[in-house]
Amino acid sequence: MIVAPPRFERIALVGIGLIGSSISHACRRAGLADHIAVHTRSPRTLEQAEALELGDSYHGDITEAVKGADLVVVSVPVGAFEAVAKQVGPHLKPGAILSDVGSVKQSVIDQVRPHLPEGVHFVPAHPLAGTEHSGPEAGFAELFDGRWLIITPLDGTPEEPVARLEAFWRALGSKTTRMDVSHHDFILGITSHLPHLIAYTIVGTAADLEDELQREVIQFSASGFRDFTRIAASDPVMWRDVFLHNKEAVLGILERFHKDLEELEDAIRSGDGETLHREFTRTRGIRRAIIEAKQA
Amino acid sequence: MIVAPPRFERIALVGIGLIGSSISHACRRAGLADHIAVHTRSPRTLEQAEALELGDSYHGDITEAVKGADLVVVSVPVGAFEAVAKQVGPHLKPGAILSDVGSVKQSVIDQVRPHLPEGVHFVPAHPLAGTEHSGPEAGFAELFDGRWLIITPLDGTPEEPVARLEAFWRALGSKTTRMDVSHHDFILGITSHLPHLIAYTIVGTAADLEDELQREVIQFSASGFRDFTRIAASDPVMWRDVFLHNKEAVLGILERFHKDLEELEDAIRSGDGETLHREFTRTRGIRRAIIEAKQA
Repeated sequence: MIVAPPRFERIALVGIGLIGSSISHACRRAGLADHIAVHTRSPRTLEQAEALELGDSYHGDITEAVKGADLVVVSVPVGAFEAVAKQVGPHLKPGAILSDVGSVKQSVIDQVRPHLPEGVHFVPAHPLAGTEHSGPEAGFAELFDGRWLIITPLDGTPEEPVARLEAFWRALGSKTTRMDVSHHDFILGITSHLPHLIAYTIVGTAADLEDELQREVIQFSASGFRDFTRIAASDPVMWRDVFLHNKEAVLGILERFHKDLEELEDAIRSGDGETLHREFTRTRGIRRAIIEAKQA
Repeated sequence: MIVAPPRFERIALVGIGLIGSSISHACRRAGLADHIAVHTRSPRTLEQAEALELGDSYHGDITEAVKGADLVVVSVPVGAFEAVAKQVGPHLKPGAILSDVGSVKQSVIDQVRPHLPEGVHFVPAHPLAGTEHSGPEAGFAELFDGRWLIITPLDGTPEEPVARLEAFWRALGSKTTRMDVSHHDFILGITSHLPHLIAYTIVGTAADLEDELQREVIQFSASGFRDFTRIAASDPVMWRDVFLHNKEAVLGILERFHKDLEELEDAIRSGDGETLHREFTRTRGIRRAIIEAKQA
C-alpha cells in the first residue's frame, strides 16, 4: 500500500501545553504543515503561544481554528473531550483526521464519537512522552524522538487515515504501534497511572509533615524520594482527569498493588528475610529486560 | 579547635562492594591513606578487588585486615554487623576509629557497641550515595561528591574522632551533617526506605504478569514505571537487611502511606476531582523546594 506523505495543508492544534507546543516544534522541524492554526481556551496561554511563534494563526474561537483543517490534534486533559468534540464536530471538513494525545483511550472515544460527522476520521493516539513541566513554553522539538506513539484504531476506520497519522508521528520522531483500546488503558494503568498515583501519595505524605521534618526530607531527598517528586510534579489537571477517566483499570491494578505490598509488609513484620530477598531479586530481572529493550 | 588532617596510616576496608570500593577510589584520589587493607568474606570478591587494585593488601582473615589500622570502615549489609564486631573487636588498636556506612543506625549501634574494647572510637556514619549497581567493580571515585554524609555520634564519644571522620568524608567529596540516631532512622525511612519498598512492590506486581503483558510493560516502561525499576534493581541483601533492621520506623511510615493512598483511592472511586486536584497541586511545592535546595 502506498502511504500518503505525512504532510498536511492545515493542522489545527487544539490545546497548546507541553504536548501541543512540542507537536508544533516537531512539525516545524520536519516541515509537516503548510499552516498551523492554534487554539486554546485561555487568552493568556494563547498570547504566550503567539509570543513563542508556535503557530501561523491564533484563534480564541475553536471553530475558526479547525475550519478547513485536514488534521486536528486535540491535546487537552482527558476530561475535556466531550466539550471539544461538541464544538468542533459540525465544523470539521469531510475527510479530515481528528486525533488526540490522551493517556486514557476508552473514555476519550466515548466522549468524542457521538459528536463526529460522517466522513471525518477519528484516530485516537497516545504519545508516551512528557516531562514534569507544563504550558506552551515547556515544549521542545525533540520530545517525541524515539518514544512510542500508540494508536488505538476504531472498528470501521479505513486504513488510509490511520497509516497517514502513523507516518505523521514517525516524522515527528516517534516509533508507532497499534493496540486494542482496553488493552491500552490497562497497560498504561500499570506503566504510568499507578506509578504516578503512588508518587503523588508518597510526596503527599511528606507534604503533611511539620515544617522542620519536611525541610530535612527535602535536604536528604537524594536517597530515593527525589525520583518520586519529579513524577509528582506533573500537571495536576491532566492527572486528575486520567484517574477519573481510567477509574476501573486503576482501581483493579491498585487491588493487586495492595496485595503485593501487604505481603512485603507481613514479611518485614515477621522478620521473614527469605521472602524479602526472593522478591527483591526477582525485580532485578525486569530492570535488565528494560535495559536490553533500550528503554533505559 | 584544630582538627587533625583526615589522613590515616592504615585504613581497613571491611566489605568491598559498591560503597567500599568507592571509598577506596576516593581515598586514592585525595591521598588519604598510606595503606589500604581490604577484607571481604567471599574469596571470589577478594580476588576481584585485587584485580581492580582497590587495596595495598588483601586479607581473607578479617583480623589480619584490621590489625594496626587507625581507621576501619565496615561496608556490609546492616544485618552482618554483630558478626563483624565480634571478630574485629579484640584486634582493634587503641585510639582507632571504627565506622560504618549503614542505612540504619540504631540497629548497627546495638550490634556493634557490646563488642568494642575501651579506647576504640565507634563513629556511626551513613553516606547518602549509591547506585543500583553492586560489587567491587561498581565503585567510582566520584560517588560521594556533593552528597550528604550523616554522622550519628554516640554519647560519650570525644569530639576529636568525630571531627576527624567528618574531615575524612569531606576529603572524599561529601557534605557532612550530624543527627540524632532515631531521627536518622525515621528521616531515612521516609526519604529512602519507603520509596525502595514501594518500587520493589510495583515492579514485583509487573513481574507477576503473564509473559506477554510483562513484555509490553517493559516496552512501554518510559511512561513512569522505568524510574521505579532502577530503584528496584538495588542490592537485594542490603535492602532485605534494611527492612529487617528498621522495622518499626518503616511500619510506622507505611501506616501513614496506606492512609494517604486510601484517601486518593476513595477520591477516584467517588469521582471527587476536587480532592485529586488539590493533592496533586500540593506535591508540586515539594519538587520546587528540592530544586531550590539544589538536590535535583
